[in-house]
Amino acid sequence: MPRKEMLIMRMYDLILKKRNGGKLSEEEISYMVEGFTAGEIPDYQMAAMMMAVYFTGMDGEETLHLTMAMAHSGDMLDLSGIRGVKVDKHSTGGVGDKTSLALAPMVAACGIKVAKMSGRGLGHTGGTIDKLESFPGFNTGISEKTFMENVNRIGIAIMGQTADLAPADKKLYALRDVTATVDNMSLIASSIMSKKLASGADAIVLDVKTGSGAFMKDEKDARALAEEMVKLGKNAGRKTAAVISDMDEPLGYAVGNALEVKEAIDTLRGKGPEDFVKLCLTLGSHMVVAGGMAKSAAEAEEKLRQVIADGSALRKLADFVEAQGGDREAVYRTELLPQAAYREEIPSPQAGYVERIVCDEVGVCSLMLGGGRETKESPIDLSVGLVLRKKVGDYVEKGETLAVMHGNDREKMKAAAKRFTDSYKFSQKPVAKRPLIKAVIE
Amino acid sequence: MPRKEMLIMRMYDLILKKRNGGKLSEEEISYMVEGFTAGEIPDYQMAAMMMAVYFTGMDGEETLHLTMAMAHSGDMLDLSGIRGVKVDKHSTGGVGDKTSLALAPMVAACGIKVAKMSGRGLGHTGGTIDKLESFPGFNTGISEKTFMENVNRIGIAIMGQTADLAPADKKLYALRDVTATVDNMSLIASSIMSKKLASGADAIVLDVKTGSGAFMKDEKDARALAEEMVKLGKNAGRKTAAVISDMDEPLGYAVGNALEVKEAIDTLRGKGPEDFVKLCLTLGSHMVVAGGMAKSAAEAEEKLRQVIADGSALRKLADFVEAQGGDREAVYRTELLPQAAYREEIPSPQAGYVERIVCDEVGVCSLMLGGGRETKESPIDLSVGLVLRKKVGDYVEKGETLAVMHGNDREKMKAAAKRFTDSYKFSQKPVAKRPLIKAVIE
Repeated sequence: MPRKEMLIMRMYDLILKKRNGGKLSEEEISYMVEGFTAGEIPDYQMAAMMMAVYFTGMDGEETLHLTMAMAHSGDMLDLSGIRGVKVDKHSTGGVGDKTSLALAPMVAACGIKVAKMSGRGLGHTGGTIDKLESFPGFNTGISEKTFMENVNRIGIAIMGQTADLAPADKKLYALRDVTATVDNMSLIASSIMSKKLASGADAIVLDVKTGSGAFMKDEKDARALAEEMVKLGKNAGRKTAAVISDMDEPLGYAVGNALEVKEAIDTLRGKGPEDFVKLCLTLGSHMVVAGGMAKSAAEAEEKLRQVIADGSALRKLADFVEAQGGDREAVYRTELLPQAAYREEIPSPQAGYVERIVCDEVGVCSLMLGGGRETKESPIDLSVGLVLRKKVGDYVEKGETLAVMHGNDREKMKAAAKRFTDSYKFSQKPVAKRPLIKAVIE
Repeated sequence: MPRKEMLIMRMYDLILKKRNGGKLSEEEISYMVEGFTAGEIPDYQMAAMMMAVYFTGMDGEETLHLTMAMAHSGDMLDLSGIRGVKVDKHSTGGVGDKTSLALAPMVAACGIKVAKMSGRGLGHTGGTIDKLESFPGFNTGISEKTFMENVNRIGIAIMGQTADLAPADKKLYALRDVTATVDNMSLIASSIMSKKLASGADAIVLDVKTGSGAFMKDEKDARALAEEMVKLGKNAGRKTAAVISDMDEPLGYAVGNALEVKEAIDTLRGKGPEDFVKLCLTLGSHMVVAGGMAKSAAEAEEKLRQVIADGSALRKLADFVEAQGGDREAVYRTELLPQAAYREEIPSPQAGYVERIVCDEVGVCSLMLGGGRETKESPIDLSVGLVLRKKVGDYVEKGETLAVMHGNDREKMKAAAKRFTDSYKFSQKPVAKRPLIKAVIE
């Protein structure tokens, strides 16, 4: 039998096995991942396999084998040139999630090494790299050598994800994305963790979001995903912890690239929104403990509060921005960040307590203003977005400002304002504030 | 959005809907089948869809829509140039299934018009077309005009399936075949019936096999498939009936192309094996009734017995063979059919009643001798095969002949003989003969 036919036959057997609820061995999973990455196993067979996995699942061992096979499908980043414990953080993403921008300088100021591969965003706002480009001149296209040097010298470097980090995951995710096979716990967990493992950090802290603005709408699912990923990380020999945090309303007040950068800077100045500060302290204390810079979460949190109070975290951000070609002045004078032409207050249509904010919809408003990408090629307007004034539990008078919208196009702003207003639901009775941290898995 | 991206997005929605147990509308199914046939919907999306269908199923309406969409995906054969009721017969296939070879002349001799598209076989033995090529000179590559003329004149014509008959089914089946999504009742039924509907007959009689040598091992499944297909045929406005027949041991005694032709000829001479004759009479009487040439099955069966007794069925075969370029003499002198170089008796390894014959294994023996195709390109040896002497329920002495093997290669024969012997299971207690007809669905 010709080689190609043989591969198709063998993959057929694996699909059949999985379809019938069987368990794939480590060797079978490696075969599948390698064959698929090399283009020898066709997309249509992998698509059928993914749908079979959607229905019959994978157990813990299969998920680990899949994760490891994908992690090893391309380059495994060697961070051994960086002194000290390298800690990575990953968020499953949400609306107003500017965490890395504040958190990385905070933990770096505590002596943790943050060597981060990051991606551009496809969605409501840009990714961390897009947001960082709000600093005039900032460049993520640095060489691996500069990356290493910067981490050693300053404690932080962020570079765009290189093409050959977990290419199996990249290819598989693209296929799952168009075949309705994304939402399976094992596949989601292995996709995230394969990249994190290939990125080479010693410790990984995960921020798993849950709520209407998160990928995991349901807290039970978020917990299951967190547990799966922590198990995967530990089984792969990395210190791993996960924080489950609320994403049923936007995080902090700012939604939009430069607006979020400004909010992160405010946070490093000690003037951050309560929920966002809480999240940074929780994730940060796990990173600091994992990095061996504190014995307990309490001690770590104290250190983190200290680096904010004494300005060293803010300085760390400025050093980092400068080291990657950006204007450090913008850290201190945020008016140097991209500014939208128009600002418009959105009034509340009624009096009452904010009962709920349809979080995804706020993201869509940012996208409508031009703050996100609809396709990979779309340009992104870093200046636009929304700064909320009222969040769940707040009382608002009729006509009082719900948010300030930043935009460059009056027509788009008009449409976004309508949609934004509709995303708020009110109650006449007091509404409790939502707790931000739901659980910590370690 | 570019057109291709739009199609992928829309197909995505359909996969998601089906994955979540939703029901696809007629319009959605047409869209999917047309897009897939045109190559606009990629294989990987269709593969995911097929696996989702495997797990969540399709209801009767969806199955009908799929069948009709596939039937209309290419040419719909127009048989209106043929006078009278055109009746088609389809078998789900099995070991020793030479039914069409005897049945077509029988019903044609009763005045039924048999206009048949047939395929080459991929499996134990050849298909009907391969078997017919045992007649020296026989040609299925006739023009549509000759085909029509022959049916009008003689009552039978058989041509190779043209490329553009239900191309959607052809493409979809090829995909299902390599993605472990063949065994789903709706998909199997729509695949068979789309081709039958496109072939243009007014009435369709289905022979659904069940048992160890059939695709449907389980009688319950065979019955479900038969019911589904009969419903589809009727909903598409064709008279349709199905016979569920046993395929737990080979049909008749002969397995192998020319050997089966000879057995079919013997049957038309009134010397056919009991089970095979029974099947021909049952299928045939439904065809004759459907074709309006008898009022009842009993009357039809009487006519069928008559055309055998008076030699008109055998003459019909000779006329048909001659009309398609074959040597009509071979119908009367079967030694003109391809003959193998060696004949070898296979002795029974023990005394006892034949309890079971692993039917598939007998097929494999024929394949080992060269009587079938392993790949589409394989040549086929028409002369080889096996003629059983003992079937389930028969008593055999140790050393008595179980079967006569016909072969052209001593080495292959040795290996096949071993395998053949192993396929027989014996009992010391009498074993009942298997009833051939399990049920009739109409």
